Amino acid sequence: MSGNTVQDLLRRRASHLSRSLSVLYDDDPIHVVRASGQYLFGADGRQYLDCMNNVPHVGHSHPRVTEAVCRQMKLVNTNTRFLYEPLVEYAERLTALLPDPLSVCFFVNSGSEANELALRMVRTHTRRRGIVVQDGAYHGNTSGLIDISPYKFNGRGGAGKPDFVEVAATPDPFRGIHRGADAGARYAADAVAAIDRAGVSEFGAAAFIAEPLMGTAGQIIPPDGYLAAVYRGARAVGALTVADEVQIGFGRVGTHMWAFQTQQVIPDIVTLGKPIGNSYPLGAVVTTPEIADSFANGMEYFNTFGGSPVACAAGLAVLDVIEDEQLQAHALRVGAHLKASLAELMARHPSIGDVRGLGLFIGVELVDDPERRSPETDLAERMVLALRREGILISSDGPDHNVIKIKPPLPFSIADADRLAVAVDRFLREAAS
Amino acid sequence: MSGNTVQDLLRRRASHLSRSLSVLYDDDPIHVVRASGQYLFGADGRQYLDCMNNVPHVGHSHPRVTEAVCRQMKLVNTNTRFLYEPLVEYAERLTALLPDPLSVCFFVNSGSEANELALRMVRTHTRRRGIVVQDGAYHGNTSGLIDISPYKFNGRGGAGKPDFVEVAATPDPFRGIHRGADAGARYAADAVAAIDRAGVSEFGAAAFIAEPLMGTAGQIIPPDGYLAAVYRGARAVGALTVADEVQIGFGRVGTHMWAFQTQQVIPDIVTLGKPIGNSYPLGAVVTTPEIADSFANGMEYFNTFGGSPVACAAGLAVLDVIEDEQLQAHALRVGAHLKASLAELMARHPSIGDVRGLGLFIGVELVDDPERRSPETDLAERMVLALRREGILISSDGPDHNVIKIKPPLPFSIADADRLAVAVDRFLREAAS
Repeated sequence: MSGNTVQDLLRRRASHLSRSLSVLYDDDPIHVVRASGQYLFGADGRQYLDCMNNVPHVGHSHPRVTEAVCRQMKLVNTNTRFLYEPLVEYAERLTALLPDPLSVCFFVNSGSEANELALRMVRTHTRRRGIVVQDGAYHGNTSGLIDISPYKFNGRGGAGKPDFVEVAATPDPFRGIHRGADAGARYAADAVAAIDRAGVSEFGAAAFIAEPLMGTAGQIIPPDGYLAAVYRGARAVGALTVADEVQIGFGRVGTHMWAFQTQQVIPDIVTLGKPIGNSYPLGAVVTTPEIADSFANGMEYFNTFGGSPVACAAGLAVLDVIEDEQLQAHALRVGAHLKASLAELMARHPSIGDVRGLGLFIGVELVDDPERRSPETDLAERMVLALRREGILISSDGPDHNVIKIKPPLPFSIADADRLAVAVDRFLREAAS
Repeated sequence: MSGNTVQDLLRRRASHLSRSLSVLYDDDPIHVVRASGQYLFGADGRQYLDCMNNVPHVGHSHPRVTEAVCRQMKLVNTNTRFLYEPLVEYAERLTALLPDPLSVCFFVNSGSEANELALRMVRTHTRRRGIVVQDGAYHGNTSGLIDISPYKFNGRGGAGKPDFVEVAATPDPFRGIHRGADAGARYAADAVAAIDRAGVSEFGAAAFIAEPLMGTAGQIIPPDGYLAAVYRGARAVGALTVADEVQIGFGRVGTHMWAFQTQQVIPDIVTLGKPIGNSYPLGAVVTTPEIADSFANGMEYFNTFGGSPVACAAGLAVLDVIEDEQLQAHALRVGAHLKASLAELMARHPSIGDVRGLGLFIGVELVDDPERRSPETDLAERMVLALRREGILISSDGPDHNVIKIKPPLPFSIADADRLAVAVDRFLREAAS
């Protein structure tokens, strides 16, 4: 019966949805019918532990977010050309969580729209076009963002690097080009060199755009001091700094609300998405009054749905739940526990080359040998499938797809962490036997 | 009290929201607290007749849409990498409303994201980069779309026309460069010439992108036969045709579900937005299997929120209401009545140069004299403000901002139409005295 609905849905997808859209576990995809907290429930009656979805940040279908959205939808959903309380309240609440001088908000519908708008801002403000990004980075699905996403322009179907883009090395201290004690300084020098290349090009250096912790590149935690040195280099040539917090913002890193804070920097522009509305389509750009003023050059910025009363109600409810359920502290505690459990497994399993992360943003890198560190891509894929059979949803990524990514909804518990660690251990024991 | 909340909201907006965001009626903006059908209600207790918002298509806060969204939000909101019924059901329902071979859907979060994706598709499919657009057109707020929107790149703060864009004349039979019986053929020849210019350029002609009826350009209804001739010219050189139905789709034109049908054409790609989710952030691109296949070149297309179960539930509810409340036929009937009432006023008011439109997409063009047709920009602005004082919300647009745009939520009634016509008449009588 459930198998039948899966086949039926796949057949119907094939008729009316593009093959460009992928389905997870294509041999045995999951027909989801409901979800709650950190669990998805299939039409087959099974419960799945969700270790992969960072969008339902405060938990799938959190009743407070649902209630806030429904309450506001019944009243009115309109646009920012009208005045309404939720917009200003949300802008105040959001900017209160960000350091000065990040105080001016723009609301959009997705992380892609946020990064698109950030691109427009840095170019309007600096009157330059060159953009510096990190290798392996992904910033969104529009043409303008694919152009600045090495993950896409160097990937399958990609058209290669555009002239106006300069690429800095992925600041990966485990398997990247620089390792050891001075890796941070050397990666920073590499990025500053890329900024300087843009600076002397015909395009000029408009901005350095980066996730403070990298997601698709393989859960990369840059060495301490890296981002501060890069930002200094950018500012030395008048380039702006953009922190893409779409994947990792809103307390996931545990110690701070924002990942850039773990690198002791304050960007000129922050872009927000995914977790911001707990699945309601919402994104934001927050910048300084100075940059917002440059951008206000006479061209109106209008976003039909962005900053609507309902979107703001969703955003406000997410902030309330993060605070009331102390989810940032929870992410720190559970993340530390899970990281420790996974690190313990390293002693028994040489294929675990690295366990890294902050809060509930964790990566487990699978390699053939702790020293040689060749990627175990196939092992990672088999682990993803084995865990799925056990009812645990997890994904792999990175340029060699050998990094297991862990970024669950924040209610993820100590018991869930233990269940995950046990499953990883069991899979690796069986794989080795 | 209400004045105080308006001042308070304006002050708080000034602190945390960009000046690039405009507010309607800046001397006396409206603090909206609830809405229903075709009415907005202010914190001042006043009811406002909404003649401007085409996004709450089936009526502000329609209970069936709210209920569908809330029901699905309580169950699960996830992404298209999982299987769920609402996605395939919505794709089936939507494509059933479109002519063959438009049968493959992509779901996104806004009209801008839809047009962005259409741009990627036409370039991937044709391996060309040149885009032909109509003068005065607006296709969205990303950099890639501002580049193809003369309304923006030639407007305040605009950077001018990029090399890869060719601009065809606005097919405006009233005040454009071609008038009279052969205007359609002459505008078509102008557009085909632009397509041919792109074709011989270094970029090649990837696509002709146009709203079948133009919105921001001033509620332009092209002459009969125009689009068919342009599409023939595009196809003759292998360029694709994109119909931007973001403003005007879903039955507003009354005689048909889609505006392109009023011009007897079938585009290669249709983009949808604004009304599609009745204010829930949603957009779509529908294309042919052939173009979808070219686009599936190995690069995954992933849109975090696009096509989520909740978005699809909103889309499905909108289709249900359009059908059950027979809103397309209603738009035809009420639109015809309103157009007739406004046309009657032309005899008394020489400043009404033209009344045009299809269904509930109507424009009233104000000019100094029916023959000379110089734009009465100031009169249009004063009319907008006078009607606002009467509790009627309406806007002006077009290159000279002298066209009164009427595009209300579809429940707009005969009585509402009469109220609007009486108010227009009264204003023009007072303005002339």
